[in-house]
Amino acid sequence: MPLKVSDIGEKGLIKRILKKSNKNIIKSSFFDDISIKSLNDDAALINFGDQYLVATSDMLSKSAHFPDEMIFKQVGKKVVTVNVSDLAAMGAKPLGIIVSVGLPKDMPLDDFDSMMDGIFEGCKEYGMMLIGGDTNESNELTISGTCLGIVSKENVLMKDGANSGDVVAVTGPLGLAAAGFEVLFNDLDLEPDTKKNLLDHALNPKARVKTGILLGETGSVTSATDITDGLASEIGEIVDSSSSGIGITIYEELLPIPDSVLEIGKNTNKNPFEFALYYGEDFEILLTIRKDVFNKIKDNFHLYKIGEVTSSGKMIIVNKEGIENLLTPRGWEHLTK
Amino acid sequence: MPLKVSDIGEKGLIKRILKKSNKNIIKSSFFDDISIKSLNDDAALINFGDQYLVATSDMLSKSAHFPDEMIFKQVGKKVVTVNVSDLAAMGAKPLGIIVSVGLPKDMPLDDFDSMMDGIFEGCKEYGMMLIGGDTNESNELTISGTCLGIVSKENVLMKDGANSGDVVAVTGPLGLAAAGFEVLFNDLDLEPDTKKNLLDHALNPKARVKTGILLGETGSVTSATDITDGLASEIGEIVDSSSSGIGITIYEELLPIPDSVLEIGKNTNKNPFEFALYYGEDFEILLTIRKDVFNKIKDNFHLYKIGEVTSSGKMIIVNKEGIENLLTPRGWEHLTK
Repeated sequence: MPLKVSDIGEKGLIKRILKKSNKNIIKSSFFDDISIKSLNDDAALINFGDQYLVATSDMLSKSAHFPDEMIFKQVGKKVVTVNVSDLAAMGAKPLGIIVSVGLPKDMPLDDFDSMMDGIFEGCKEYGMMLIGGDTNESNELTISGTCLGIVSKENVLMKDGANSGDVVAVTGPLGLAAAGFEVLFNDLDLEPDTKKNLLDHALNPKARVKTGILLGETGSVTSATDITDGLASEIGEIVDSSSSGIGITIYEELLPIPDSVLEIGKNTNKNPFEFALYYGEDFEILLTIRKDVFNKIKDNFHLYKIGEVTSSGKMIIVNKEGIENLLTPRGWEHLTK
Repeated sequence: MPLKVSDIGEKGLIKRILKKSNKNIIKSSFFDDISIKSLNDDAALINFGDQYLVATSDMLSKSAHFPDEMIFKQVGKKVVTVNVSDLAAMGAKPLGIIVSVGLPKDMPLDDFDSMMDGIFEGCKEYGMMLIGGDTNESNELTISGTCLGIVSKENVLMKDGANSGDVVAVTGPLGLAAAGFEVLFNDLDLEPDTKKNLLDHALNPKARVKTGILLGETGSVTSATDITDGLASEIGEIVDSSSSGIGITIYEELLPIPDSVLEIGKNTNKNPFEFALYYGEDFEILLTIRKDVFNKIKDNFHLYKIGEVTSSGKMIIVNKEGIENLLTPRGWEHLTK
């Protein structure tokens, strides 16, 4: 049987493209001084004097990303959030977003309008403009966003700079989005406020744009990425991207998992650590940072230490009994076997 | 019955977005001096000192854009061509392209590889890099490209500057792609060379990137756009974009329709003027240019005069008998009633 794209998954496909890209080095016909850095990071960086132009792209489709329970305004806003979150993870200031949509013929115009309202609401939230796009016919609602931003070369946050001894931290609590989706899909008996808060994290996520920019400006963050694809898989990305053979050890008891998430775990008979480590959809930033600086800024930035960078070359999770286990970098892949 | 997106079509949807955009003026939270020009043009322009950063986006889907007769390498290359053509129409030098793909789970990996090969071939052809992207699951193959480029403010080509008295011209022959698709879909008895040439225009279109840049540098092109959506509809865009109430008159006998296209018209019992005016897919540039400059550069640039800009406020086509008819700006819309 010939292989299908689903046999190698999203990360496999991207590795395949990168390999092809290394075989197809293309010299620009028009610019001597333009070069592209990092096809592998959250976003592409294009040299622009002492700044980088940052460009990132995310495509979302009805079947993979938008449960029926999501209203169209949330769909539109989420497209903006997902895209701008990649800029946030690089410390870049958003310039604007380009949104192309593939629309089923029979999509009600009211739904289209609501979706556009959500896109504009997202743009307002992050202080950037809708700068272009395209509309097309498609069998399935598909929305592709491309977000452009600017970051100075001094302040850019990349995946590849973690050093042994750095603190590993996140910018907010974990598992809230996953718990929110459990609430959405199951009829759970909960306090109205808890329910609302969890649903909000699933349906109205917010990207850490200002935090990302400020973190970049500290000059002390050695690596960063967003964890929308899952914390464990992004820890893997930071370990893989480093050229100095680092490892990362995280501690279960340090993971900032709110009580409401623990409660949903109990209610659904699922492991809340799974929500925090593998599910993704939490729009927080994972970062490594110099230890001395971490202690100075952690309160201002509401950072949670979850572990440390080691020289072990391994990803390890330490449970509450102090027992070490290997952490597998699986995350939430749309294309699974 | 509530309206559906197909009831108002692609241009209607874009007008609707522009209207919403005018109601949602968003001030950038991060840049004082950044402004966006022209959400209505082929591409967005972002102020960057004495240059514009140009960003354009086109989304293509299997059902609307890729007939089964197209091989995946052609699919990939076409995505690049369609996107870079919008840069060409603005006189911009391409920096690079971001490509996001929505893939059906059961797409053979070989087809994916061929598609990527086509994307890299396209990038090479236009001297630019693949700078990023995203892969996702989708029910239907969907490919969204975003092309970035640079153009000096002096040389940028826009839709809105045509003046009465200007020459209306195109950069190449018309109707070849439409005729090529007729060859693709019908079993026609043709010379092998003719057949090959026509199929090539349908399946391996080329964008006029260098011509666009050089036209911009003349400083005498008053408006321009590409005609991939159809010549008549783009003439309408130039008339509508002008603030000075211009009209455009074109002449049937001036339209550069090759003999092979006329032959296909005869063979299929279709009107070759329909191929040239309405079908689209010819990746040429439509432009208006000062008359004195046109005569100086037409041979160097292989330009074909097809008419002139008037002060009539109307779009007129003059047939071979000298009779004037109104030219309706309908083009090739994916979303039709």
